[in-house]
Amino acid sequence: MNDLRFVEIGDVKKINIFGRLGKMKNPLPLFFNGSGVEIVVTGSDLWIEVETDSDFHEPWVAYELNGALMSRQMLLPGEHSICLFRNMNPETPKTIRFYRELQAMSEDDKCKVIVKGFKLNGEFIDVPVYKRKIEFIGDSITSGEGSYGCVSDVDWLAMYMSASVNYATMTAKELNADFHIFSQGGWGVYCGWDNDIRHNIPSVYEKVCGLATGPSNEALGTLDDYDFESWQPDTIIVNLGTNDITAFSQPPILNPDDNKMYCQRRNPDGSLNRDDEMKVEKAIISFLKMLRLHSPDAHIVWCYGMLGCDLNLTITEAISEYRKETGDKKVDFFQLPNTTMETFGAHMHPGKESHRQAAKALVNYLKQFD
Amino acid sequence: MNDLRFVEIGDVKKINIFGRLGKMKNPLPLFFNGSGVEIVVTGSDLWIEVETDSDFHEPWVAYELNGALMSRQMLLPGEHSICLFRNMNPETPKTIRFYRELQAMSEDDKCKVIVKGFKLNGEFIDVPVYKRKIEFIGDSITSGEGSYGCVSDVDWLAMYMSASVNYATMTAKELNADFHIFSQGGWGVYCGWDNDIRHNIPSVYEKVCGLATGPSNEALGTLDDYDFESWQPDTIIVNLGTNDITAFSQPPILNPDDNKMYCQRRNPDGSLNRDDEMKVEKAIISFLKMLRLHSPDAHIVWCYGMLGCDLNLTITEAISEYRKETGDKKVDFFQLPNTTMETFGAHMHPGKESHRQAAKALVNYLKQFD
Amino acid sequence: MNDLRFVEIGDVKKINIFGRLGKMKNPLPLFFNGSGVEIVVTGSDLWIEVETDSDFHEPWVAYELNGALMSRQMLLPGEHSICLFRNMNPETPKTIRFYRELQAMSEDDKCKVIVKGFKLNGEFIDVPVYKRKIEFIGDSITSGEGSYGCVSDVDWLAMYMSASVNYATMTAKELNADFHIFSQGGWGVYCGWDNDIRHNIPSVYEKVCGLATGPSNEALGTLDDYDFESWQPDTIIVNLGTNDITAFSQPPILNPDDNKMYCQRRNPDGSLNRDDEMKVEKAIISFLKMLRLHSPDAHIVWCYGMLGCDLNLTITEAISEYRKETGDKKVDFFQLPNTTMETFGAHMHPGKESHRQAAKALVNYLKQFD
Amino acid sequence: MNDLRFVEIGDVKKINIFGRLGKMKNPLPLFFNGSGVEIVVTGSDLWIEVETDSDFHEPWVAYELNGALMSRQMLLPGEHSICLFRNMNPETPKTIRFYRELQAMSEDDKCKVIVKGFKLNGEFIDVPVYKRKIEFIGDSITSGEGSYGCVSDVDWLAMYMSASVNYATMTAKELNADFHIFSQGGWGVYCGWDNDIRHNIPSVYEKVCGLATGPSNEALGTLDDYDFESWQPDTIIVNLGTNDITAFSQPPILNPDDNKMYCQRRNPDGSLNRDDEMKVEKAIISFLKMLRLHSPDAHIVWCYGMLGCDLNLTITEAISEYRKETGDKKVDFFQLPNTTMETFGAHMHPGKESHRQAAKALVNYLKQFD
Repeated sequence: MNDLRFVEIGDVKKINIFGRLGKMKNPLPLFFNGSGVEIVVTGSDLWIEVETDSDFHEPWVAYELNGALMSRQMLLPGEHSICLFRNMNPETPKTIRFYRELQAMSEDDKCKVIVKGFKLNGEFIDVPVYKRKIEFIGDSITSGEGSYGCVSDVDWLAMYMSASVNYATMTAKELNADFHIFSQGGWGVYCGWDNDIRHNIPSVYEKVCGLATGPSNEALGTLDDYDFESWQPDTIIVNLGTNDITAFSQPPILNPDDNKMYCQRRNPDGSLNRDDEMKVEKAIISFLKMLRLHSPDAHIVWCYGMLGCDLNLTITEAISEYRKETGDKKVDFFQLPNTTMETFGAHMHPGKESHRQAAKALVNYLKQFD
Repeated sequence: MNDLRFVEIGDVKKINIFGRLGKMKNPLPLFFNGSGVEIVVTGSDLWIEVETDSDFHEPWVAYELNGALMSRQMLLPGEHSICLFRNMNPETPKTIRFYRELQAMSEDDKCKVIVKGFKLNGEFIDVPVYKRKIEFIGDSITSGEGSYGCVSDVDWLAMYMSASVNYATMTAKELNADFHIFSQGGWGVYCGWDNDIRHNIPSVYEKVCGLATGPSNEALGTLDDYDFESWQPDTIIVNLGTNDITAFSQPPILNPDDNKMYCQRRNPDGSLNRDDEMKVEKAIISFLKMLRLHSPDAHIVWCYGMLGCDLNLTITEAISEYRKETGDKKVDFFQLPNTTMETFGAHMHPGKESHRQAAKALVNYLKQFD
Repeated sequence: MNDLRFVEIGDVKKINIFGRLGKMKNPLPLFFNGSGVEIVVTGSDLWIEVETDSDFHEPWVAYELNGALMSRQMLLPGEHSICLFRNMNPETPKTIRFYRELQAMSEDDKCKVIVKGFKLNGEFIDVPVYKRKIEFIGDSITSGEGSYGCVSDVDWLAMYMSASVNYATMTAKELNADFHIFSQGGWGVYCGWDNDIRHNIPSVYEKVCGLATGPSNEALGTLDDYDFESWQPDTIIVNLGTNDITAFSQPPILNPDDNKMYCQRRNPDGSLNRDDEMKVEKAIISFLKMLRLHSPDAHIVWCYGMLGCDLNLTITEAISEYRKETGDKKVDFFQLPNTTMETFGAHMHPGKESHRQAAKALVNYLKQFD
Repeated sequence: MNDLRFVEIGDVKKINIFGRLGKMKNPLPLFFNGSGVEIVVTGSDLWIEVETDSDFHEPWVAYELNGALMSRQMLLPGEHSICLFRNMNPETPKTIRFYRELQAMSEDDKCKVIVKGFKLNGEFIDVPVYKRKIEFIGDSITSGEGSYGCVSDVDWLAMYMSASVNYATMTAKELNADFHIFSQGGWGVYCGWDNDIRHNIPSVYEKVCGLATGPSNEALGTLDDYDFESWQPDTIIVNLGTNDITAFSQPPILNPDDNKMYCQRRNPDGSLNRDDEMKVEKAIISFLKMLRLHSPDAHIVWCYGMLGCDLNLTITEAISEYRKETGDKKVDFFQLPNTTMETFGAHMHPGKESHRQAAKALVNYLKQFD
């Protein structure tokens, strides 16, 4: 291995980078689950140099060799030199994709994964070209929460989330697409599962990774305005609503920002309070306008249903209203298959089979627009 | 078999009758696919006496023994004495369900299936009690068109339709429900697949079987007002829209009733002409009002998507508008899984596996309201 | 339909006939389950003229249009004119396969199905050419017993048997093969399930249909020597042994032919009595010699295991002994997948899914010899 | 984490150890794939302390939390402190199983995995009690070769092998069984895939881990006689033969031990040379005697067929001969489902779905002996 040389990530020209990029590119932070790097190399050995930090929620990473998952592991704070393969046939080109499993962590300011470069004894060769670009925006479902872990596990921990077992990744792979994920467990389009109105995706969507705060993240550029022109998706999948509907069954919560109580209400007959439902609809309409502003040509598909579809008519009413207001026709609604007793993963979230079914339905749907 | 005795259908007290009933009950016409009779009997042998007529579209029937499909056959015009089983253990109770496979035929005025009675050498015993009552209203999908036949078959014939391979029947069985089917291939909520505005389900829904016309049918009472109070469903599944969206891609058609041309139009960019889309929406709203008028307590679920979901936002906008207008909250939208290349049956209609998947999703959805 | 003409079966030159043929070919008896006729015709309408008889065990038949099962029904004694299709596009060639569902009946001397001819208004055109020829020899499994019917059904009746839901038919279809079935429920290679040594397949195998006796059958030629040269299989699948092993757990039985008691015995530890096991092995060796005599070039595969595999070592020991004795190398053993709680059909026999799994494994196995 | 305490593996009394044990138990070497430790602990954090070494073939390990696979990774030479979980609910008992993925390596004398102990802040509580004990003896299939990796991967490397995706592990889990694996890729019961007669499992079976040689391994006790009385299996699954049949299609090879050429031959017609076939049979008979010597009460099942079943009659003839010679009845033959184009993993070995199918069939088979 004396012949291994180190190449800084910024010097690798033949590379696919998945996930949003900020100002810092060398070394390269991986902000979201699914954020990662893909290279094709010759040579017998390949290592990746990574720096990580975290407090409570340690990052997990995974890598695939020629499209097959080989390893998935926890990374505790520090510098990591990870061997991705060794002793392989030097002439054969090997495709490696290394990516973050853990979502952007709004609850751990220290959490970060930074790729510094590769050690190898071969050459970088041309990487696959992806014709499609898909952006996935979501909540815990898109963060792969519960995609790992036993059905009876209920702790809320980093290890249960993934990009490796995730309808977003599966869909992108099947459609041969480059993809971005922007998601956060517990958040909604209007409010979080617990009525916390601060936990809405639109409020952080325009920053590089507005979910990751604190001095360490800020230094990585997470709170900078995101340069949407740098990566224009063909398709935007919004998978939000699951936490917004949950909020209607939760107690009021105090918002420390304005010291007021917030609560989405139900009528005595169990139906949604119309005023509160309209708050969700306004948030949807407003978010669609934000998305359209930044991605003028994208086909926007609101996908919903992997954990129940009680918000179907609320979401579609908002989309219809948005279409009427704006004349924008490139917005659709698509219901995803529900998770059942046979397809649950950990703590009542979609398991691998549920993600697989959702990806299959979504791929089938998206292909008709080719 | 000398010991067999004949019992008129009107004299059978222990019986489940599936499908709408008109004034004529002895003998008993089976108007729709899925319309049928279910009895539980002792004795070694059982026969059913049936009279049928037809011109071009001959009726097909099927029967199940203890829940398992045993036979499916064509019935040409005449009197039929059909042996349902023979030489069985006389003591064991046997459950037999005999039903019509072919939809109500709007295109064959002579087509009819009339049950006259049974020949048996045992006793009628108590039939199953079904807690749920579900009404399915639909088009060719609910008529099971293409559920039989080879993928490459394209003739439009009676033999390809069924209740035996049909998401409606499968759903009712899985939920242990009594059920009605009211469906017609090619028809929509506003117009038929070919822009024929006469082919809309609401226009015939209030008659016993408004789809079956002509003197022969009229004599059976098909055009009488249906007595909705006689059978109040808990759940109404409306699976319409597939032909309404098809009409937007078809040429204009002359309506002989008013000698005018009719055509649902698309905009130059391919989107739906808003005026024409609103015709569909008005028809949906109006039909929902009709359904609610006759079934004040039913949970109405508009199901759609087995042959594409392009009309999602049109249907949901109409439902939302209906809810706003009426305050009626017991109306929902549920998207069914799409048919794929692996699940097509004959002439590009859902095959058995597609019906199975739709039933599975629908059962899972309906169970949450238990 | 005035334009329909009748063509005697003996005058149809473009035809595939499945199943063994005896001296009588016009009209044409269908002796075994799977025995049938296949034609390709133009014209709008097609009828088949059939004569049947039976006492206790009435024959069932089925037919497929372009490879898809359309109908399955009971035929009581008499002349039957069965419409196979009507009103189809006259120009399009239609492939129809009409076949017997019920096994050859050793227990009903009157049981018979005789095809007399077709009525049609089109032309007979070329039929498919099958490259492979496969003979299936078996017991109730190959007779499709329990392939129809509810899991809890236990009567032993004709209606539960089939060729339509049968690993033999599925295998032949998947391999694009002509095929013969020779099978009988309850019979073995040495003795029947109940120790009746008269119920062994080899004793009747050399007659056209030695299972069907009595004057009526004799007149059809069932007891004539079968002309093996008339149809030489490439592959012979022997699926016997399930009843032979059952006999080891049954009480002794009196054989009326010699007035002796017969019983396959187990040792006190539950293992097979070696003398009795050797009787089975001798029967296997002797049967393999008989098969080889009549089919000098066929690949003989003893398949076993769909209802347990307790006889694996007995069967393979016999095959090895046969190979040593004869030097014949074209004999193999292949274990079929077992039926499980999820794949049972009626009265503890393989259901549709079990037959499908067996066919899949067998097709995969046979393809490696191509 | 200051409160974590270290407990030597030898001091852990409440533990399940999978896989063969030699004289060295503290620290504890994991010799085979599937060899591992299982504990149930309270506390929020758990670490395992492991020492590994290797040259070309680095060990891989995996661990499961409450039965769900959480991580799989490569371990390069050195001391490893691996966090198995952190920040979990301290009161909830957590079941952790940590095991070796890589088979015993006959080709890397330095390769080893040694467990030193755990760091934890909770208590060890009672571990599951397994009623069954199953020993799996095999080749690359049982080593899980190709169970990871892309279908087109052809390098022969440690990373492609596993216990995590392996019919042996799946079978043991499903049957709630303790289990041992003894396997080696490329080896047979008589000779290796390339005719190397030194590569036969029986020659090393009686040593603790006769596959692992060299001073480093010897120091761990791999070449000591194994104490069979220390762990008596109820069931022994022998899955050998796949390499023995391959040898019949390979060129001769020089055996450096005696400087002679060795080759299993075929006859001109492609059948196996009888003398050479008898060498395999003798090896089987001899190995069965060795197994019976050490495990007098075990049910021995020779399982074969996941990569073709060409040796069926050779194996069964040997088993029958063994049974005749010894009178031993507790030896059976069971054919496993073949791997198909849809179920291959890397370099033409069984993939996950093939292992799953094999486990399902084997579990179904073994359950009937309960």
